[in-house]
Amino acid sequence: MSHLFDPGYGEEPFRTLVEDYPGDDVYPSSRFRVEWGPIFHRGRLDGSARVLVIGQDPAQHETIVRRILVGEAGRRLQGFLAKLGVTRSYVLVNAFLYSVYGSVRSATRKGPALVGYRNRWLSALLVGRQVEGVLALGRAADEAWQLWKATPDGQAFGGAYVPITHPTQPESSSKGQRDLLAGATKTLLRNWNAALQTLAPAVAHPDAPRPLVLYGDSWADGDRPAVPESDFPAGLPPWMHEQDGWARRVGSDDLLKRRTITITVPKGIVR
Amino acid sequence: MSHLFDPGYGEEPFRTLVEDYPGDDVYPSSRFRVEWGPIFHRGRLDGSARVLVIGQDPAQHETIVRRILVGEAGRRLQGFLAKLGVTRSYVLVNAFLYSVYGSVRSATRKGPALVGYRNRWLSALLVGRQVEGVLALGRAADEAWQLWKATPDGQAFGGAYVPITHPTQPESSSKGQRDLLAGATKTLLRNWNAALQTLAPAVAHPDAPRPLVLYGDSWADGDRPAVPESDFPAGLPPWMHEQDGWARRVGSDDLLKRRTITITVPKGIVR
Repeated sequence: MSHLFDPGYGEEPFRTLVEDYPGDDVYPSSRFRVEWGPIFHRGRLDGSARVLVIGQDPAQHETIVRRILVGEAGRRLQGFLAKLGVTRSYVLVNAFLYSVYGSVRSATRKGPALVGYRNRWLSALLVGRQVEGVLALGRAADEAWQLWKATPDGQAFGGAYVPITHPTQPESSSKGQRDLLAGATKTLLRNWNAALQTLAPAVAHPDAPRPLVLYGDSWADGDRPAVPESDFPAGLPPWMHEQDGWARRVGSDDLLKRRTITITVPKGIVR
Repeated sequence: MSHLFDPGYGEEPFRTLVEDYPGDDVYPSSRFRVEWGPIFHRGRLDGSARVLVIGQDPAQHETIVRRILVGEAGRRLQGFLAKLGVTRSYVLVNAFLYSVYGSVRSATRKGPALVGYRNRWLSALLVGRQVEGVLALGRAADEAWQLWKATPDGQAFGGAYVPITHPTQPESSSKGQRDLLAGATKTLLRNWNAALQTLAPAVAHPDAPRPLVLYGDSWADGDRPAVPESDFPAGLPPWMHEQDGWARRVGSDDLLKRRTITITVPKGIVR
């Protein structure tokens, strides 16, 4: 059995970009979990991407696999891309290299070094490449896009752009209340349907062309496909990409919780 | 500040080798922690290696960083290589892709698929390359070497070969008894001194030529240098390569312990 994997950052300009990542002078450790290191991307860096996605920040599963959007948000995004026929030709970066701790001040978010480094990534992925559509997940991602779009590189970009509701916004906004969750999910899926109708005509070279099928009022079977093994570093076990909830931040106080990630192999794997 | 990193497995023949790794049909899950995925190597895959090291099997720190010999055993090995003037031009593989759970039966250790896959790695690293010396850490590594050496590729290899005591054998043999540990360490360092004297003349192209300085009777300052950042995947935080003991297998019973790795950022990093 062959296990495809993501070859990572061996090729320029990404090799140098990854070597040059900013630290806590740019991402203050009071607002970002810089202690876990930066996490850069997921998807194609070889120029084959047709869709670029901007996410927000990595969480604990992303910290372990060192790729972004691999948990529930990643699956929902994967389903959105699949509706466009994009099953492989995508690339994902986040607004922030490090996990947000609490909230981020505007002055930090718009700091020239933070924005400048991110803009280098966006230019590397968009200038002279074949991306036909850009998707932003949530407000921080939209802001990241606008800041790049205002640059000379950004002004020259002619592809489509759509900001959408962040994939897990229904959970974060409803805080465990089921009726609120159902309503927020319905609202999100309408928002996503509008985005699909804008992006579908713009993405002229999907991997697997298909008629556009919109979302219903709630998640349906097939709306949350697994993130492909080929998006992960070499040798990661199947449960890391097939399942969710295997990494948790645990600790008896805030500091210990911040310092700890516990990984538990899901039940049924070790017999 | 530039953060050098290991570019991994993007180039052939390693790309295909990594895609083709064997699973629990070759490494039975009763004897190996296959649930954490295979861990392949550390060091140079670009043909620049002058020394090849064969280790035994990965432990919990290796499982997180996805490179072998990064903990205490790795530091001691790093010191050994430094005495030869080899600070960069090395490559390390293990006898086993997965962490040993308990002990391994001879029939498993010598299984044709297990040996055959490992031999593909050894041939990829040694045939037509410029390795001048091979080092085996412990018995399983020596056995791995002998099984490759018996192949046509192995018979044609003309470099030096030295099996040495495994770097953490003093700890595993002394089981917490300080006097036994001191004696076992002294015995190991004598064994390593003999190996240095064999290997030093064979390694004709060190990175940083230096007079050979042998070990004393115990570990001295500088004998356990850090594993270089450039041996780790992109973006891993400094404490993962500068420190040890940050990954533990914890659990209230054997199964939960096997299923769990807890990572704790060392004290003093998050303030």
